[in-house]
Amino acid sequence: MKGRLQFLVAKIILLALASSFVSCYDPSPLQDYCVAGVQDINGVFVNGRFCKDPKLVTSNDFFASGLNIPGNTSNRLGSFINPVDIPGLNTLGVSIARIDFAPGGQIPPHIHPRASEILLVIKGKLSVGFVSSNDYNYTLFSKILYPGDVFVFPIGLVQFHANVGKTNAVVIGAVGSQNPGLIAVGDAVFGSNPSIDPKILAKAFALDINTVKYLRTVFFPEDDIVNE
Amino acid sequence: MKGRLQFLVAKIILLALASSFVSCYDPSPLQDYCVAGVQDINGVFVNGRFCKDPKLVTSNDFFASGLNIPGNTSNRLGSFINPVDIPGLNTLGVSIARIDFAPGGQIPPHIHPRASEILLVIKGKLSVGFVSSNDYNYTLFSKILYPGDVFVFPIGLVQFHANVGKTNAVVIGAVGSQNPGLIAVGDAVFGSNPSIDPKILAKAFALDINTVKYLRTVFFPEDDIVNE
Amino acid sequence: MKGRLQFLVAKIILLALASSFVSCYDPSPLQDYCVAGVQDINGVFVNGRFCKDPKLVTSNDFFASGLNIPGNTSNRLGSFINPVDIPGLNTLGVSIARIDFAPGGQIPPHIHPRASEILLVIKGKLSVGFVSSNDYNYTLFSKILYPGDVFVFPIGLVQFHANVGKTNAVVIGAVGSQNPGLIAVGDAVFGSNPSIDPKILAKAFALDINTVKYLRTVFFPEDDIVNE
Amino acid sequence: MKGRLQFLVAKIILLALASSFVSCYDPSPLQDYCVAGVQDINGVFVNGRFCKDPKLVTSNDFFASGLNIPGNTSNRLGSFINPVDIPGLNTLGVSIARIDFAPGGQIPPHIHPRASEILLVIKGKLSVGFVSSNDYNYTLFSKILYPGDVFVFPIGLVQFHANVGKTNAVVIGAVGSQNPGLIAVGDAVFGSNPSIDPKILAKAFALDINTVKYLRTVFFPEDDIVNE
Amino acid sequence: MKGRLQFLVAKIILLALASSFVSCYDPSPLQDYCVAGVQDINGVFVNGRFCKDPKLVTSNDFFASGLNIPGNTSNRLGSFINPVDIPGLNTLGVSIARIDFAPGGQIPPHIHPRASEILLVIKGKLSVGFVSSNDYNYTLFSKILYPGDVFVFPIGLVQFHANVGKTNAVVIGAVGSQNPGLIAVGDAVFGSNPSIDPKILAKAFALDINTVKYLRTVFFPEDDIVNE
Amino acid sequence: MKGRLQFLVAKIILLALASSFVSCYDPSPLQDYCVAGVQDINGVFVNGRFCKDPKLVTSNDFFASGLNIPGNTSNRLGSFINPVDIPGLNTLGVSIARIDFAPGGQIPPHIHPRASEILLVIKGKLSVGFVSSNDYNYTLFSKILYPGDVFVFPIGLVQFHANVGKTNAVVIGAVGSQNPGLIAVGDAVFGSNPSIDPKILAKAFALDINTVKYLRTVFFPEDDIVNE
Repeated sequence: MKGRLQFLVAKIILLALASSFVSCYDPSPLQDYCVAGVQDINGVFVNGRFCKDPKLVTSNDFFASGLNIPGNTSNRLGSFINPVDIPGLNTLGVSIARIDFAPGGQIPPHIHPRASEILLVIKGKLSVGFVSSNDYNYTLFSKILYPGDVFVFPIGLVQFHANVGKTNAVVIGAVGSQNPGLIAVGDAVFGSNPSIDPKILAKAFALDINTVKYLRTVFFPEDDIVNE
Repeated sequence: MKGRLQFLVAKIILLALASSFVSCYDPSPLQDYCVAGVQDINGVFVNGRFCKDPKLVTSNDFFASGLNIPGNTSNRLGSFINPVDIPGLNTLGVSIARIDFAPGGQIPPHIHPRASEILLVIKGKLSVGFVSSNDYNYTLFSKILYPGDVFVFPIGLVQFHANVGKTNAVVIGAVGSQNPGLIAVGDAVFGSNPSIDPKILAKAFALDINTVKYLRTVFFPEDDIVNE
Repeated sequence: MKGRLQFLVAKIILLALASSFVSCYDPSPLQDYCVAGVQDINGVFVNGRFCKDPKLVTSNDFFASGLNIPGNTSNRLGSFINPVDIPGLNTLGVSIARIDFAPGGQIPPHIHPRASEILLVIKGKLSVGFVSSNDYNYTLFSKILYPGDVFVFPIGLVQFHANVGKTNAVVIGAVGSQNPGLIAVGDAVFGSNPSIDPKILAKAFALDINTVKYLRTVFFPEDDIVNE
Repeated sequence: MKGRLQFLVAKIILLALASSFVSCYDPSPLQDYCVAGVQDINGVFVNGRFCKDPKLVTSNDFFASGLNIPGNTSNRLGSFINPVDIPGLNTLGVSIARIDFAPGGQIPPHIHPRASEILLVIKGKLSVGFVSSNDYNYTLFSKILYPGDVFVFPIGLVQFHANVGKTNAVVIGAVGSQNPGLIAVGDAVFGSNPSIDPKILAKAFALDINTVKYLRTVFFPEDDIVNE
Repeated sequence: MKGRLQFLVAKIILLALASSFVSCYDPSPLQDYCVAGVQDINGVFVNGRFCKDPKLVTSNDFFASGLNIPGNTSNRLGSFINPVDIPGLNTLGVSIARIDFAPGGQIPPHIHPRASEILLVIKGKLSVGFVSSNDYNYTLFSKILYPGDVFVFPIGLVQFHANVGKTNAVVIGAVGSQNPGLIAVGDAVFGSNPSIDPKILAKAFALDINTVKYLRTVFFPEDDIVNE
Repeated sequence: MKGRLQFLVAKIILLALASSFVSCYDPSPLQDYCVAGVQDINGVFVNGRFCKDPKLVTSNDFFASGLNIPGNTSNRLGSFINPVDIPGLNTLGVSIARIDFAPGGQIPPHIHPRASEILLVIKGKLSVGFVSSNDYNYTLFSKILYPGDVFVFPIGLVQFHANVGKTNAVVIGAVGSQNPGLIAVGDAVFGSNPSIDPKILAKAFALDINTVKYLRTVFFPEDDIVNE
């Protein structure tokens, strides 16, 4: 329960990541800028985001601060993502985030469905990698990174970052979309709401049903609360 | 009715799915057609595929057969994918496949990084679903499907299909790309080549190291062979 | 008059095809999904479709049924198109339809301006083909298809499908857009509302004016009604 | 026979139109310019065009002349298209052409599958129009145009231009692609090579078989030669 | 010939160019047309433009006139741009404009950030050119143009047109977007509102501060007025 | 903190920025990755880059180092750009660079024609800004930035960054393309090769011809050398 709650810190941040990123990776901007405004008009949305009146746009719509401040990594995974929250990014196809890692901390296997990522190490020693798709036989491309090193993660592939040094680690991640999306594999498979049928998952992973149920408590502790 | 269900065959499997599809989901064709030709020129490739001389293109470049023949589902997952292999699909942004399921068979949690999918049930009873990303709290959208039913799976999200009926099942899957790609989650995470560091995976999934090593034997039995 | 009315069955369906398909073939989804909601806000539309509140999205938004039911082919052309009507397809760039053909039935020469198509024969024997553009000298690519056969029709080219067997025929057509559009050549040229100047058409096709007027009664019998 | 040959003048020009336009309407240029070079490398093509060495590019690669010279409209349709032939247009998504019309001349119903068009009248009086797709009930949008008038034709829809004045007419047509493509409806339906089965066309247009055969002699006089 | 050159008019100027063009160069139309309607709904905009009800669309939405009327070139630069203002261009990716030049008149160095341009000379003698980016060493591609000549300007590069003949000059410019945008380099650098810090500009151009202040009076005379 | 700021080096400069970035901002990758390989095949190029054999791809294709090493800012503008040079970025639509500024140093007014940029300040105090296009009246959006601050620069607009603090400054710039391109306004206008006609520039900027010739010596000193 504790672990789950602690991860919620990071999770809320991850959530903030996606919701702060705004809209496109394909459509180009059709004007100089289209600063994200209201989310909806009476419950009606658009592909991407509605934009505020360009006459009301100010410099602050293109600005954010605080990426120099370490995040709180006191959670199960020992990591913290601090994405920027800039409405002016809407339609511009790029964004940036700071990620902190405690020693041993990690961003677990995940996918960005709408952007490739480029990682720059500011501090620490990390083991990072991505796995190609079935077409390329699930080949792992990985590297140990030190300050000043850069690594690229292609769009839509499973990737991970782990602090394998003895100190905190800090990286800057840039993505080619203002809304790259984030799918942590464990959360999507074992922590969905509601759950995927445990029998289907047991067969998919050749695991006994109890291990699947245990994994559910890891990735969806709310269920745990309900059941106990 | 019987005739309509006399589908299918199979030369390939999961592995073949992606490699038979050919190339794009974004760039439109820049001419009437660009039939996939040689893979490379002296080891040099392009984004997508090189095309054959349009003067040599024939009707057969747009044709395939055999989707009426059942695939061999005698494997651990009890399923078989038979995608079409049509060079003329290159640049056209669509493809199709037949999938067979033995009773209890499934296509395990996977992602198509480059296309949305639409599924049509020809025969049988299936439980299918997809899980939204972190943005939408890993919500599961699922349904039990019967013949004539159709379900949609958005690009880049984790999805699964399982035969929950007592007979074989047959579905037709259409995708909005000639090269949708396929990432079976278990294969990418536990079966990559080489392996992701088991300690990183153990922490990611809160599993003990032995379970991670067991999962490796499930998704990468070659290792097992080599080691014993 | 009868013929025209009968074709209206198919026509309404064709119309349904386009209106049930929703919006894009180029812009990628800028979020997990953007389920088509209201058509307009006080008469104001967008390129593509407005979307419903993602918090109100359910599994049924990605579901349709009934593609196992034969369509009524009792019309002049002896065919019936049953496209799926799934709001969740909006922005996803793919769709599917079932087409039924009576013996001798056909889908006459037409163009999908916003998607390529892939056809899978479920039952029957069909003659299908497409014609390249002026660039490639209006070359016809055609084939006789049997169950399990697949044929590809590139975006924007004139294509046709005709049942040349002795039984009903059934095909599944998949397209790389949720809104491929449909332009039946005869309807666009001879059945527009209002009519293209018959003298212009007479010269274009080297036909006498009476034949052009006859063709108008075929493709726009409403005129006929008015005149007689 | 004469008519056909005469139309070949325009036809060869139309052909030149498409082949002089080069490649894209979707992919943006990925560098400053990508001047079209060789068509193929040993029979191998790409989506769009190969480009010449940027170090060998000169101002002439972006230049053409002669659009001030009237075209020869002595052909069945009384029109002549003179598109520019500029290799530097490759990847740039725009092109231009001059069209001449004799009195009564026309560009018959046709489609540009890969670009919208905008027409500017330099001289004369023209009747122009386009027909919406089935979605919008084949509505005709048309207008009589005079010098200085401009009209827009959306991508993929059937359009026509006819000189309805008593003098020659001259227009400039701009398109949003360097390779818009051209499908003259009559040529694609009745003049393909080889022919679409006349019985299929007879049913499609509710014409007797002899009229279909006559239309073939109009749009494909080569057949005529062979047969007689 | 005379008639062909009787072009043009003019209501707007450089400033009007962009605002009359409407919206996209990447997203394709997701329906037949999406005629630009209201700019905003209660101050809320979209990427591109909202569209009017398709049922209310008429031929006039695709029409404009007046490009045969000469523009008033009595201004510092001796030129006048008359772009078309056609709501139906929205989403169609193309537009057109007439430009008039007095003897010695010019369109100064500028960039279209969202479209390539193709120029056709109707009358006069012009010196035109564009400069490649840093990648290609700021190479100038230029040409002297006469009536009937055409020159291409790639998207996003600095270009200019100058009348170097002794008479007025008239050109037609077509662009691959309905909203190409316009950045006159002098205006953006020296005439922004408010001003870029003159010290920064002085260093950027190695100019003394007084010359920078003089340039400001050229490109932003309003300041001048306020100050004196 | 110190460690985190021990960035960077530099092999290249402004000139190298674009050539190290590789290729796209619109076409999505049509496979997992398309690692940039040879530039040309016998002098023949493609839009973007040719790719190396995927079987020969290694982790190092996605890796670069050295962004922790300060660049040499001993030049007229007092700044240094160190972009990453990673062949694996090809088709992935993102890149990153380190920029160093001496006190008073600047990146002068410039445009990235193929990507938006997001800037993160690692060290120092900077004045940054961009100017909207003619459509938005050349409005300046600017801000003073401190460590941890982020600012966004929309694609294709004129932007600048200047160190207004008393120490060196370091920023990380991320762009939504692997080949954003770089057009320094002064270089393109006054330093092109060959020169734009000084008389045209004199009129464009309302400068006397001698000031234009002086500016040429600033931006194209080679000419100076030749002349003296």
